[in-house]
Formats: sequence, structure tokens, C-alpha cells
Amino acid sequence: MSPQADVQPIDFQTWLTSRVQQVEGMLEHTLPGGDAVPGHLHEAMRYAVLGGGKRVRAALVYAAGEASLQSNAAAASQRIALDHAAAAVELVHAYSLVHDDLPCMDDDTLRRGRPTVHVRFGEATAMLAGDALQPLAFESLGMMPIAPALVVQAIQLLARAVGSQGMVGGQAIDCENVGRVLEAESLQQMHRMKTGALLEASVLLGGIVAGGGSIVRDGLEKYAAAIGLAFQVADDILDVTADTATLGKTAGKDVLENKPTYVSTLGLDGSRELLRTLRDEACAALLPLGPSACRLTSIADFIVSRDR
Amino acid sequence: MSPQADVQPIDFQTWLTSRVQQVEGMLEHTLPGGDAVPGHLHEAMRYAVLGGGKRVRAALVYAAGEASLQSNAAAASQRIALDHAAAAVELVHAYSLVHDDLPCMDDDTLRRGRPTVHVRFGEATAMLAGDALQPLAFESLGMMPIAPALVVQAIQLLARAVGSQGMVGGQAIDCENVGRVLEAESLQQMHRMKTGALLEASVLLGGIVAGGGSIVRDGLEKYAAAIGLAFQVADDILDVTADTATLGKTAGKDVLENKPTYVSTLGLDGSRELLRTLRDEACAALLPLGPSACRLTSIADFIVSRDR
Repeated sequence: MSPQADVQPIDFQTWLTSRVQQVEGMLEHTLPGGDAVPGHLHEAMRYAVLGGGKRVRAALVYAAGEASLQSNAAAASQRIALDHAAAAVELVHAYSLVHDDLPCMDDDTLRRGRPTVHVRFGEATAMLAGDALQPLAFESLGMMPIAPALVVQAIQLLARAVGSQGMVGGQAIDCENVGRVLEAESLQQMHRMKTGALLEASVLLGGIVAGGGSIVRDGLEKYAAAIGLAFQVADDILDVTADTATLGKTAGKDVLENKPTYVSTLGLDGSRELLRTLRDEACAALLPLGPSACRLTSIADFIVSRDR
Repeated sequence: MSPQADVQPIDFQTWLTSRVQQVEGMLEHTLPGGDAVPGHLHEAMRYAVLGGGKRVRAALVYAAGEASLQSNAAAASQRIALDHAAAAVELVHAYSLVHDDLPCMDDDTLRRGRPTVHVRFGEATAMLAGDALQPLAFESLGMMPIAPALVVQAIQLLARAVGSQGMVGGQAIDCENVGRVLEAESLQQMHRMKTGALLEASVLLGGIVAGGGSIVRDGLEKYAAAIGLAFQVADDILDVTADTATLGKTAGKDVLENKPTYVSTLGLDGSRELLRTLRDEACAALLPLGPSACRLTSIADFIVSRDR
């Protein structure tokens, strides 16, 4: 079944469900079994990765990949490569959550409605599980059956996105500023690194795998920058509007800890206004890609609608 | 200056000094400056990586690379690729030390005669510094100016070596067995993963970069397996025979914490006997490579002679 065949007929929710199932299967296949030595570590890795989650990053990989493949049917090898790339971004995301939840960081005990990895498996194992999930993500990209030059490009993109000037750097800025009120610009910079970098990388990975040309990549880059920020704004709004049960993690924690958020900087109304603007920017960026980008539009709507 | 030109004329110590300087320069160049945002994180990364160390892993990359290039002068691009690979293994090694030293792991306060990273920069920053050094290693490999297919092969090799069935897996087994006496076979398995995997990968990376054929790779694999274990045996002996000042880290710690070591399993004499056997195995494996492998032989001797 080529992505072309199903772009029009099925609705977004059906598409999303199918892609989430696809990446879940891939993750199950990529992670060593709990019976592989060392068992405790592998159990922790599986617990961290396979415990649900919205799989927004994987969906972005698939949606961007399918948008970039508009002019020709997807080759089987490209479909497989998208699976590998989708698994890779989810592995990295899972590792970052495990480390963020550790006592020396956010000290969270609840994630997706379950005890966090260190609560369940101990601190040392949680740290090591995160440490091992990261190279597994690069290994997953390394196994993509496409031109080696594109594989290298994808690996470089992910490595930069999750490094000291991307995701981990954003996390470090966040830690350094607990208890301070950041200005809007600094806040935006921090989020662009902490959450935006990996979301953007997910979109761009889909484009690289699908061999998208410069017009496509340009559109994807602008889209990615906008939804990267939108995601964080929605998260900050949810932290004050949702309850712990709905959120699956401790609500109101950012406020309690006096963490810099969009809501603390722009207020609730200002944050919602920004969210709408970012959604419009994201959709405008997709216009040159035509109708095959419809899943990306739907994901932008999905991100914005989390604020309810 | 091609590696061929300097294999015979200069002695091992001069060669080693020159390669250590080479990788130090490369690391200096690869690490973002302390003035790059976030500064605190980058300072911690630089402190972790540039604080000395024997650079045994980098030396193995260069020595294996130069051994594999025996029949033709090294192309400039291969020399550069060896620099990138040497930097990559040192970045990974540095990250593993930072995480191993954390309170939730070995809780060490001294490393190479200086305060450990978390003592100096705080726990959160130490964890994040390690988290950011790891992708920097993959990025360094990704920049090697050789055939992309070889780059992907190198990345896959490193990813597996440092994952849950390599370095991090060995660390996890070590943690799980504190307070128990491991049997010789289990101990060997643990060290083969914890320390051996990255040392072996260093040797094999040199071979991949230099495009070594199957006879060369076969010899390198056997050599790598032997010196991987030899390194750990020497380390365990040093833990009981050297003092803290000589070691640059807390001596006798393994014994105090009842950690499984070669000395606790085989005794001091048995460990020294094993060390000599492993050295002979390593050197025998190099015979098919001829005289260009002389640096690898010297590194084997260097590792064994640490036991003094």
C-alpha cells in the first residue's frame, strides 16, 4: 500500500492510528528483549519506550516523508527507512524523558500515568537505560536501506538536534533558570532548543529519507520551526489548565517550581494567541507542497487542539 | 608526512606523543567553546574531555589505521578521518566517565587528580554534559571525509559498542553485582562489554577508516579482543597495587566496595599471569599484518606495563 493510495480516502485519525501502530511495531522489534543480558537494563529500556506516548515525533517523520514523496510512489526501501527514522526519534525522546525525570533533574515520579523509570528500576538503571537508548537511535538510522550519503545526512541532523546546542542545551538552560522569570526572547530560544530541535529534526528527517527537493525542504523547515514552538506553548498552557489525571504527569508543577513558561511570560490569553499564530504560520509554509502535505496540516491542528 | 615515513624512524613514545597531540587538537576543535550558549554546559563538557587522560583509545584508532594502510600511502582524507574517529572514541569515553562518577553510580569525587565533573559543575550539568558528548561523538564520525558507506559502517560499529549490549550493558551488570563475587566467566563477560567493547571498537574503527581488507580486519579483531581484556586486568591490578596519587583516582575503591575484579577472582598472581597471556595473544594476532602493526604491538606492551 503506497502512501499515495491512502492520502485522500482515510481520515487523519485512522492515518495516525496506523502510523502509531507501525512505529510501535518497529520499536518492539528494535529494542532488545527483556531476556537479553543484562535483563534489568533491557526491561527498563522497554518500559521507558513502550509505555505509550502520543508518538507525535514519529507521526511527523511519516507525515513529512509522505508529503515529500508526492511526485512518485514510495519505494519499499523508503517506507522501511521512514520506519527506522520514526523509531529513532521516539528512542531519543524516550531517553530524554527518562533523564529529565531523574532526581538530579526534575525529580518526577509520574509519567504517562505510571511510575517513572527511576522509581520503578532505580536511579542507576534509569540513567544507563537513557544512555543506551541514545546509541540505539543512531543505530536505527544507520540501518535505513537508502543511499549511504542520505543516511549520514540524517545521522548528522539528529546528532546536532539532540546535542549541546539542541535538545540537551535547552534542558541545561531550563535547569539554570529555575526560579527566574525569563524574557520572551530567551524563553523562546530555550524552547527552540529543548523541545523544538527534536520536533524539527523529525520533520526534516522525513524529508531527507524521502529525498525531498529544496522547495520541499524549505517548506518543511518553516513548518517545523513553527510547530516546534507551538508544541511547547500548548504544553505550558496544559500545565495550568489540565489536571494530573488528564495529563498523565504531575500538573501545575512548572508553576509550583517557578519554572519559566509561556504562560508565566505572556499570560494565558497571550499564549493562546501565540499558539494560533504559530498554527497559521505552519500551514502557510506547507502551501508549496500541495495536497500531499495534508497530514502535516492535521498534525499542526492536533498540536493546537491539545489546549482544551 | 605519511604514516609510512615515520613507522621505522621514530620510537613509540615519540609517535604516541604526536598522536595524543593530534587528538587533543581535534577535540579542542570539535567541542563548542565555553562562550557558546549554554556556557555552563560547554564548560563542563570541555572540563570532562580536555582534562588529560592517556588517550589509549585514540592511539588505538591511529595505530590500527596506520597498520591497515600498510600497502599504500595514506590519503589526506583518510588521515582526517582517523582524527575524527580518534576524537569520537575519546568523546564517548569521557561521557562514560562523567556518568560513572555520578552519585547514583560510583559516586567518585576524584578523576585524573581533579574534582569530578559533578563535584565541580553540579549533578544535573554533569549528566547533561555526558548526554551531549555522546551525540557529538556520532557527529564527529559523520564528518569523516571518506566513502559514506564506510562512515555508516563506522557509526553502526560505535553505536553497538556503546549500547546496552556493549559498554552501557557492562556498566549495568557491574552495578547489579556490587557485593557479590562473580565467577571468572561472568566477570570476563562483564569486562568484555564494559571496557572491552569501546577499546575493540577503537581498533576496528581504525581498520574501517583505512579500508583494511579481511585479513587485516580479522587480525585486528583478535588483537582487539585480547587487549580489551588486558586493559581491565591491568586496571584491577593497579587498583590494589598503586596509591591514589599515582592513579589519579581513589585507589582500593573496588576492594572497599567489594566490587567484582580479576584480583578478587583470580588473585594477584593469577591476574598477572592472565595479563601476560593476553599480551602474547594480542601480538600473535598481529603477525599477518607485518611490520606496519608495530604501534599496535607497542600499545599492547604499554597496557601490560601499566602494572608496575
